[in-house]
Amino acid sequence: MNALMQALTKISPDITELTNIPVPQYGLREVLVRVRSAALCGTDLHILNWNQWAQGAGIKLPVIMGHECCGDVVAVGSEVKNIEVGDKVVAETHIPCGACYQCQNGEQHICNNLKMFSIHMDGCFAEYTVIPAACIRKIPREISYDVGAVMEPLGTALRGVNATQVGGSRVVIIGCGPIGLFAVAAAAALGAAQIVALDISDLRLAAAIKMGADITLNAVDKNTDQIVLKATGGYGADVIIEASGSPEGLKQSFRLLRKGGRVALIGLPDKPVELDLVKDVVFKEAKIIGIHGREMFKTWTQMESLLVSGKLVVDPVITHILPLTQWREGIELAKSGQACKVIYHP
Amino acid sequence: MNALMQALTKISPDITELTNIPVPQYGLREVLVRVRSAALCGTDLHILNWNQWAQGAGIKLPVIMGHECCGDVVAVGSEVKNIEVGDKVVAETHIPCGACYQCQNGEQHICNNLKMFSIHMDGCFAEYTVIPAACIRKIPREISYDVGAVMEPLGTALRGVNATQVGGSRVVIIGCGPIGLFAVAAAAALGAAQIVALDISDLRLAAAIKMGADITLNAVDKNTDQIVLKATGGYGADVIIEASGSPEGLKQSFRLLRKGGRVALIGLPDKPVELDLVKDVVFKEAKIIGIHGREMFKTWTQMESLLVSGKLVVDPVITHILPLTQWREGIELAKSGQACKVIYHP
Amino acid sequence: MNALMQALTKISPDITELTNIPVPQYGLREVLVRVRSAALCGTDLHILNWNQWAQGAGIKLPVIMGHECCGDVVAVGSEVKNIEVGDKVVAETHIPCGACYQCQNGEQHICNNLKMFSIHMDGCFAEYTVIPAACIRKIPREISYDVGAVMEPLGTALRGVNATQVGGSRVVIIGCGPIGLFAVAAAAALGAAQIVALDISDLRLAAAIKMGADITLNAVDKNTDQIVLKATGGYGADVIIEASGSPEGLKQSFRLLRKGGRVALIGLPDKPVELDLVKDVVFKEAKIIGIHGREMFKTWTQMESLLVSGKLVVDPVITHILPLTQWREGIELAKSGQACKVIYHP
Amino acid sequence: MNALMQALTKISPDITELTNIPVPQYGLREVLVRVRSAALCGTDLHILNWNQWAQGAGIKLPVIMGHECCGDVVAVGSEVKNIEVGDKVVAETHIPCGACYQCQNGEQHICNNLKMFSIHMDGCFAEYTVIPAACIRKIPREISYDVGAVMEPLGTALRGVNATQVGGSRVVIIGCGPIGLFAVAAAAALGAAQIVALDISDLRLAAAIKMGADITLNAVDKNTDQIVLKATGGYGADVIIEASGSPEGLKQSFRLLRKGGRVALIGLPDKPVELDLVKDVVFKEAKIIGIHGREMFKTWTQMESLLVSGKLVVDPVITHILPLTQWREGIELAKSGQACKVIYHP
Repeated sequence: MNALMQALTKISPDITELTNIPVPQYGLREVLVRVRSAALCGTDLHILNWNQWAQGAGIKLPVIMGHECCGDVVAVGSEVKNIEVGDKVVAETHIPCGACYQCQNGEQHICNNLKMFSIHMDGCFAEYTVIPAACIRKIPREISYDVGAVMEPLGTALRGVNATQVGGSRVVIIGCGPIGLFAVAAAAALGAAQIVALDISDLRLAAAIKMGADITLNAVDKNTDQIVLKATGGYGADVIIEASGSPEGLKQSFRLLRKGGRVALIGLPDKPVELDLVKDVVFKEAKIIGIHGREMFKTWTQMESLLVSGKLVVDPVITHILPLTQWREGIELAKSGQACKVIYHP
Repeated sequence: MNALMQALTKISPDITELTNIPVPQYGLREVLVRVRSAALCGTDLHILNWNQWAQGAGIKLPVIMGHECCGDVVAVGSEVKNIEVGDKVVAETHIPCGACYQCQNGEQHICNNLKMFSIHMDGCFAEYTVIPAACIRKIPREISYDVGAVMEPLGTALRGVNATQVGGSRVVIIGCGPIGLFAVAAAAALGAAQIVALDISDLRLAAAIKMGADITLNAVDKNTDQIVLKATGGYGADVIIEASGSPEGLKQSFRLLRKGGRVALIGLPDKPVELDLVKDVVFKEAKIIGIHGREMFKTWTQMESLLVSGKLVVDPVITHILPLTQWREGIELAKSGQACKVIYHP
Repeated sequence: MNALMQALTKISPDITELTNIPVPQYGLREVLVRVRSAALCGTDLHILNWNQWAQGAGIKLPVIMGHECCGDVVAVGSEVKNIEVGDKVVAETHIPCGACYQCQNGEQHICNNLKMFSIHMDGCFAEYTVIPAACIRKIPREISYDVGAVMEPLGTALRGVNATQVGGSRVVIIGCGPIGLFAVAAAAALGAAQIVALDISDLRLAAAIKMGADITLNAVDKNTDQIVLKATGGYGADVIIEASGSPEGLKQSFRLLRKGGRVALIGLPDKPVELDLVKDVVFKEAKIIGIHGREMFKTWTQMESLLVSGKLVVDPVITHILPLTQWREGIELAKSGQACKVIYHP
Repeated sequence: MNALMQALTKISPDITELTNIPVPQYGLREVLVRVRSAALCGTDLHILNWNQWAQGAGIKLPVIMGHECCGDVVAVGSEVKNIEVGDKVVAETHIPCGACYQCQNGEQHICNNLKMFSIHMDGCFAEYTVIPAACIRKIPREISYDVGAVMEPLGTALRGVNATQVGGSRVVIIGCGPIGLFAVAAAAALGAAQIVALDISDLRLAAAIKMGADITLNAVDKNTDQIVLKATGGYGADVIIEASGSPEGLKQSFRLLRKGGRVALIGLPDKPVELDLVKDVVFKEAKIIGIHGREMFKTWTQMESLLVSGKLVVDPVITHILPLTQWREGIELAKSGQACKVIYHP
């Protein structure tokens, strides 16, 4: 194919532009996808701003930005099995090597040699994108392109909720950005008896109610801890989903946890955090799990079943849909705190 | 107390009567309860009819019938801790010895020397009943007496559903008697992606829809298997809850199970069943768990949280509420197949 | 390659011969292996005798027999990753499709479209064999060819033991054929507190002692049950590994199980078995798992680590090593009950 | 009883003495025990020195010191079930309330209102001690008094090892004080494929070898990390047991952990520790569990079975046995770093 396509390209540390470039070539074990919907993630903002993390992430410029997307398969490499032209697909982001200890033992999503879609190769803010067979996922037609585009972060939230066994439990979700809101929806779908959502933005807390939170609390209030403790009979929460990544959110996670409770750490603090391990972990017998992505492909199977059945509903999180040409507006919305998830249609 | 009370008493194999007998004495480790609501169970019919099982169950006549109940504590033995006059309580039915291997290792509900409320001591179809401290459960006031009275069988269903990890799974529930219907509600509450309910009574299947079933099938239809297989993408169900106790239901359970699926056996077949273990269990790698009651008291904690939060709703199962004086009418209703759960108010 | 090689070939229902045939061609996703050691399995005897099971198994004659083997890679298909010429490898036997529900969810060993090495393609009783990339396993050099050749059945036993959490538990192993003996070794390695082995052959029971059994009992003795119950404090065993496949062994499994115990079913009864599900499973709350092969490749990783460290020792099971030319002698030994595992060196 | 007995009593912050005091009274739900063996723990040294922790622990002076002990029951309160005069018993240390959320849900060892033997009541460095029925454990006669006296810390180690599923895994144990050494023994008993033990004392590392370590490393060596990584194929350990409580040991725990690995935190750092949660926990998907005591009484059951069977051997940890009159010598030995576990015979 010699045709040109539009693509949002990070050209240099200072320059990001909508470019017209050739539709990409695909390899023997790769798939060419017509992108129908792509979602903006916090990581994209880091790359745009070329902050410290982005500078050290191993990105070779120029690169097409974006990693959350859904589209239609238009061509398939000759060594690819199980994917056909016309399939509706999403990108998993995590590209496993297939050979390491983790890959050989059912943990390919935390592959020891993990590559990332849009970091170690071009991404999906473009009319076409190339997705490796190792990380492509065919999804049911009943799932819309826009919901398909947010399944990657939704899956992270679902996995955190699933790993902490929320059924019948009292759950506190700290941080109501997109992943926190998805966690609220997942906890509601999987039978949490009580969902308390915390954030510092009333706008986000209002969204949390729509997603299924029973109680929302603005974390700047001084008596947040007391309210949560009271709501949990004085014991603290059975489950904490930490999705804020703030040092204060992390410390609060352990304060609000009951003895014997379970914690999923999803948020990414930007520096080391001091924890009182004796009080917070040992004497509490806290069970903590770090969540970095979705089990391949158990989490996807579960997520698809819940979405298709209508028992997991995430539409309220998608607050803005824009053509890719209005990418700057999307960025501004995301920065403003007025948007949850911004979607581009390339 | 020398006062008299009404009690439904199995006097001899042939005679069951509403009697006027003294309010019972309670021991040092027992609690006296004013029964507000009591539910009729299949076991009660067996005892009434004094069938083969009842004759061999170790029951000493006369005995006050009934084991599912909810009421208020009116007196407490001097060695009882944590229960007070005025508490709203239910009877757990299973009376653990506290000393055996199972009791010492967190499995007191399957105590090696298990005694049963209403089998090895008087039951609750009476104005007052005595409940051992070892099997009494204080419940939240928000739960009504009538819902409290069915928590014992509801807990059995909830535990079966919980043990088979239904979140996001395709679940088939075989048999829609009260426990099967409770299992439908529990599976819906805990996030099953798809619930298929089977029975041979259209009345019960209609109730299953009210409880949250997505698909109901009358098991007498010849193509039931094909419909279920089609609904599960040709693989079979992730989870089977067997609540019919019929040999055919049991065989069907394994036919409808996918390779690697999970089965909870709750129903009680009245004779041995022939299973093709190679095809049904070994080659399928079926994971089977027998369910005989509720974890003490994990299942209760989870159940109470779900009931209080309104995320588990079971009212449609309670189809009839009668004064205890109309006990014969309740029995007839239960036998007729027109009732789900019959409740007595003593 | 046009060279010839020796191969034990099932030519027709009545004829099995050592033939001289061309070294086989391998496909793009296959590997050519010089077989150094191959082990005789009960399945091979079924195929040899062309019994009812063999007739219905989908085998197309002629076929090279044998599926348990270890050897060196001599050539690799162009689309094969992670395997190189010179690697020491074994065949997994289970060939997953890679596309079905099970394969996509971490259960490829019970693939919905499972093919079997030596059933649906030629096997390994030959100088060379072709192994699909999907089921080849590179093993550490420290493991000998002969131990490598028995890792497939050893893995089945290890997985059954692992799935039933034997650490600190009282374990009864029923049936001391090769898989039962491997289960004894695995249970000893993984910290079973007490291992009771049952069989009807004193020769096999003597082998069980070598593998780590604490108590051996000849199942024909009338008081076997009482002895086991006494050895387990009257409660029954925490764990049963059923490796006999006999109806009596299966019934005994449940008799000897404690309430709340765990059962791995590995043996393959040749007809349906009648079980008293109420007493054996529901009231006992038995947890039963069928075991059909090894998790790919978790079980292999664990097995290799234990073999390399010397903490799992299985040599006593390998009782006879013969050149492939003496294949008839191996068959006779296996039939005689005087051998445990017979190995051929092609 | 008006008889006098010897008891090591913390009289005031500055004074600790062997006193002659009356044999204590026991309550309705308490048991009087003739102490045969009692072990010195690090906590005892803190109380002796009346350090900051001890000052804030809620201890009312005077108090009889010591909490690890084994002895014979000489009298039983009238409301105590299942314990008889003559039983060989140990003290669990953790005294659950029986009424809180944790106690009602199978987690009584982390009771929300936890009281501690020898902290909130008198301890066991005396000829007689009083143990509440709620925390007494009858042990098999085959276990010696001296091994019985160390079962409390041994159980903590066993539980940490058990919770991290060491069977077939590569395990690193950080810190070889008594609990670390017990963890080495437990990991060996439960089938760890490889045990690496780290400490800064060569004496302790020599003990670790006796307990079953495969590799020992002095943590002061600069290349400790590289050696461990090499020994684990470059991936890091499957399991870390942190028993040092030092900030450096904690940081090292996460450095040496493979992606997807499991960590038991047992050691008690004396101040908050800074952790790089993104790298150490989230991106690694670390599974962390705090361990504060033994499951009541699952851990005890497992431990007793392993000790009686001879599959768990801990004698090398008991380096010194002294009459209680030589208590000062025991303290000096413990401080010197020349002793592992010091036992007193009162």
